[in-house]
Amino acid sequence: MCGIVGYVGFRNARDVLIDGLSKLEYRGYDSAGVAVRTERGLEVRKKAGKLAILAGDLEQQPLAGTLGIGHTRWATHGLPNDANAHPHATEDGRLVIIHNGIIENYLPLKQGLIARGHAFRSETDSEVLAHLIEEKYAQANGDLEVAVRTALAEVRGAYGIVVTHVDHREIVAARTVSPLVMGVGDGEMFLASDVPALLAYTRRVVYLHDGDLVVLGQDGYRITDLSGNPQTRELHHIEWDAEAAEKGGFDTYMLKEIYEQPSALTNTLMGRLHDDTGEVDLDIDLDPSSFKRITIIACGTAYYAGLVGEYLIEQLARVPVEVDVASEYRYRQPLVSENTLVIAVSQSGETIDTLEAIREAKRFGAQTLGVINAKGSSMTREVDDVLYIHAGPEIGVASTKAYTAQVSAMLMLALWLGRARGTLDAEKGAELLRAARELPRLVEESLQPERVANIERIADKYKRARDYLFLGRGVNAPTALEGALKLKEISYIHAEAYAAGEMKHGPIALIDENLPVVVVATESFLLEKTVSNIQEVKARSGKVIAVVSDGDEEAARYADDVIYVPRAHEMVSPVVNVVALQLLSYYTATLLGRDVDKPRNLAKSVTVE
Amino acid sequence: MCGIVGYVGFRNARDVLIDGLSKLEYRGYDSAGVAVRTERGLEVRKKAGKLAILAGDLEQQPLAGTLGIGHTRWATHGLPNDANAHPHATEDGRLVIIHNGIIENYLPLKQGLIARGHAFRSETDSEVLAHLIEEKYAQANGDLEVAVRTALAEVRGAYGIVVTHVDHREIVAARTVSPLVMGVGDGEMFLASDVPALLAYTRRVVYLHDGDLVVLGQDGYRITDLSGNPQTRELHHIEWDAEAAEKGGFDTYMLKEIYEQPSALTNTLMGRLHDDTGEVDLDIDLDPSSFKRITIIACGTAYYAGLVGEYLIEQLARVPVEVDVASEYRYRQPLVSENTLVIAVSQSGETIDTLEAIREAKRFGAQTLGVINAKGSSMTREVDDVLYIHAGPEIGVASTKAYTAQVSAMLMLALWLGRARGTLDAEKGAELLRAARELPRLVEESLQPERVANIERIADKYKRARDYLFLGRGVNAPTALEGALKLKEISYIHAEAYAAGEMKHGPIALIDENLPVVVVATESFLLEKTVSNIQEVKARSGKVIAVVSDGDEEAARYADDVIYVPRAHEMVSPVVNVVALQLLSYYTATLLGRDVDKPRNLAKSVTVE
Repeated sequence: MCGIVGYVGFRNARDVLIDGLSKLEYRGYDSAGVAVRTERGLEVRKKAGKLAILAGDLEQQPLAGTLGIGHTRWATHGLPNDANAHPHATEDGRLVIIHNGIIENYLPLKQGLIARGHAFRSETDSEVLAHLIEEKYAQANGDLEVAVRTALAEVRGAYGIVVTHVDHREIVAARTVSPLVMGVGDGEMFLASDVPALLAYTRRVVYLHDGDLVVLGQDGYRITDLSGNPQTRELHHIEWDAEAAEKGGFDTYMLKEIYEQPSALTNTLMGRLHDDTGEVDLDIDLDPSSFKRITIIACGTAYYAGLVGEYLIEQLARVPVEVDVASEYRYRQPLVSENTLVIAVSQSGETIDTLEAIREAKRFGAQTLGVINAKGSSMTREVDDVLYIHAGPEIGVASTKAYTAQVSAMLMLALWLGRARGTLDAEKGAELLRAARELPRLVEESLQPERVANIERIADKYKRARDYLFLGRGVNAPTALEGALKLKEISYIHAEAYAAGEMKHGPIALIDENLPVVVVATESFLLEKTVSNIQEVKARSGKVIAVVSDGDEEAARYADDVIYVPRAHEMVSPVVNVVALQLLSYYTATLLGRDVDKPRNLAKSVTVE
Repeated sequence: MCGIVGYVGFRNARDVLIDGLSKLEYRGYDSAGVAVRTERGLEVRKKAGKLAILAGDLEQQPLAGTLGIGHTRWATHGLPNDANAHPHATEDGRLVIIHNGIIENYLPLKQGLIARGHAFRSETDSEVLAHLIEEKYAQANGDLEVAVRTALAEVRGAYGIVVTHVDHREIVAARTVSPLVMGVGDGEMFLASDVPALLAYTRRVVYLHDGDLVVLGQDGYRITDLSGNPQTRELHHIEWDAEAAEKGGFDTYMLKEIYEQPSALTNTLMGRLHDDTGEVDLDIDLDPSSFKRITIIACGTAYYAGLVGEYLIEQLARVPVEVDVASEYRYRQPLVSENTLVIAVSQSGETIDTLEAIREAKRFGAQTLGVINAKGSSMTREVDDVLYIHAGPEIGVASTKAYTAQVSAMLMLALWLGRARGTLDAEKGAELLRAARELPRLVEESLQPERVANIERIADKYKRARDYLFLGRGVNAPTALEGALKLKEISYIHAEAYAAGEMKHGPIALIDENLPVVVVATESFLLEKTVSNIQEVKARSGKVIAVVSDGDEEAARYADDVIYVPRAHEMVSPVVNVVALQLLSYYTATLLGRDVDKPRNLAKSVTVE
């Protein structure tokens, strides 16, 4: 997690750092800090809390210099206070470092350094690196590059590290696991953990690979591996629109992204559905007859998109699918062979658990496919094939448009597999293809002002609830899970979801007159069962908020409150239904005064384990 | 769900009914009722609430008669009030019925009956049956058996139905899906939804099959199918000890059952582990080389036992395993063939969702295995093979000893498969076999008074928490899930569990200084990762209750409270670790004054969908 920015050039470094960090704040925001090389040496400023606190401090007491490094932190070791914020300096203040990731063997390293006289000021694992490099610097007679390389040889763990020293007008950086990208300017060089931080200054970037160590000066850079062998890395030209990541007319990124869903889905589906032939063209090289099992690995919201994928692929393509949480999968010696397709679902393409899980799957010989949003991300370079979801940049920490785009991509994948494997006939394929094509319009309809106003009213009515239960069945069981996660993430209300049929086997004990229960009860061959569940909740005096297809009075009659949603083919309905739950979460959170774009404790792209 | 008792003979029917229902109350207890054939006709008494309320009423105003039927109800349609309680009588009071299950087409039936002049007094689907049979009785010129049969021909749904009429000294009963068992006495006949209700009177029982209709008189019975063809059913002799289902010296069944675990596990393992050969003998006919995939289906607690099974079987036998919630599985056209083994896990063997799921799997051609506690239960007759867990009768609604026995059975199954399929060598097999054999002793150690006192102290400290989070990894990820379910079921505290690595992908937003987080952090190759998760919780001021192996100071150092548990081989540790979580739930609930044996809204054996 965490955001890194580095700069050496001719501009005021402070401005570049604060501006770049503001573009990365979605990666974590427990604290922020910068170090700038000024006339007085390396000056460090760091503050607990959001970036604005640090920026305000720098307004009052500016730092002048043209080389600096900066950081926003998402706490892993130690509380998010000033001392634990980055950068970390040595005692003499002549060397500063920033570190993303986790140093697994920091305890023995720290004990050794203390024994050799180093005094620590923070509780972080990262500070170990400052002292260790300082020690190596002395041994290397002032060669900073060699010092960093020899220090890293003793470190076990994941890192993106950035180092500078008062005697060098250079920045030394290295990565393994944690992402780093360089921006190449004219007479200036940039470094960041993600591209948005660079876009205001340059569109020429170099992605560092695992094990790369780079030395950046004002006029250029050199990359080596950790043994010192020179490496060459491709120069990319970024074509993203930096404007696309702004909020537009909306109060928050999240709301903007909810409303972007019709266009995002249009992009996801565009050019891939061929009405004339009833075929789906995903432009991937995968041989659909070359595997017998599919495993989908993902985390958080993407995991729930995977669960919808499981249902759709099993129904339409009749291939057995298992979905696993990436952090579990990577440590369970997965059962894979060349007959196994492993699909990784990740918005950022940087989620470390998913990345490591896909690497593990490859070691065991699996074929791999990524369902990914961010182009050029680490995962896109690891998988055999990529199905981009084309949802555009997603800044709000709580995923919305990436989720519906992931589900739509899963739908297309299921259609493609079903047609290619002969389990889905042309007629049924064409029916589902038409249903998929309707999705942007149906989601647009879901966002009609009177529908949104109804959801806002319901959110207001139940916003004081301490808990929520979400229920759904079949292809919409994951919709309930995603709805609960969304509410949990941004409102901090403890929402939990169950397959509706599981309620009786435990969670029903929670039901009393204080518990709102959201039931996804849209048109389905299972609707009768779901309506029975609604009655079970009512028989125990629970409050039912039913998500119901337009015009279905039968499903609505037992509910306390009803959210009508546009009718959709059951197989595509998760995309439509979840929009109502996104809005319910959104308004609940905003009515409670939460910062929905930056919920507490969370980070957008989880690049530590 | 619900409990049924019927009696015709020479004893005071009221006593037999109340006594029998008291043995069945674990099946549901929203309301209770009886109908007794007295000199004044069929007299009905029914009361909302627990059986004791009805029993008290009958003490004050006795009913004298030697034929009667009784019921305890777990509400599905309509609130648990007096009117909705069973039995339901016709308007003239000459016919009464009791019904378990759900009548799916009750609405059109009810509308027709109302149109023909019937007046309804309850909101239940069941009352429809009373009126419908009354109508058929008139058409059949007073033949009660024919009336029941022709009425049932119009009914769609699941039922166990018991009927009596003032003009007949007989009870007519029928079942499909909902279980019914007859007890055969000398000059008396019994009927019940489960054997414990009969044991005080007879040990000779006849299990009714789906579609059976029976007429019971004082001196005998006759069974036909729904078309009227005579059927013969085997007479079984029950050897259970009725005493075994009493509470012993404990305050509650649940606590008794927690303490029974060492002996229950001894029974589970007994005679099955052969130290001399390192082999496991499960006495099942299944050919371990005849399948390529395994699907485990279950509900609630048994589902979590299935998740442990998935981990163990995949690791030890290298067969791909998927675990599915039964209520979902049965409606998703499962991907099975004769190469698929489907394992149903159920304590009662009557869980309707699991029963229907296994039937669905059989229709698709799967081989089936039941991991079941209750002998003679419906599921044992449906599956190809049974692995009994031998945990003895479990009365507490919240499962404890059945869970640890299920997990132990899964372990033996994994060992057996691993050895038979050659993926587990003799040495490793023997090591795990020794570890399994240690389980009763380790669980005994877990129940040492000082350990229990420590857990009670922690329960007291956090009992006012509104929410709990449970975390675990790998083979102990299901331990966290089961711990959370237990707490939810009996304390009504909203506890939720996650694989520890998923915390960062959403639930971490819930963490603040008011949230206790239980982390299963016992000895494991993943312990370092779990300790990192503990630090992440602490960095956000959450309260950590760590479950730690005896003597492990490193894992304990960051926790607010520590529950030390005996050291166990990681692969068998879920059995040991969960005991601590059972006790944590138990003491939290009792300190809050909850009725742990009969938590609100729940039933022991969920025999409706």
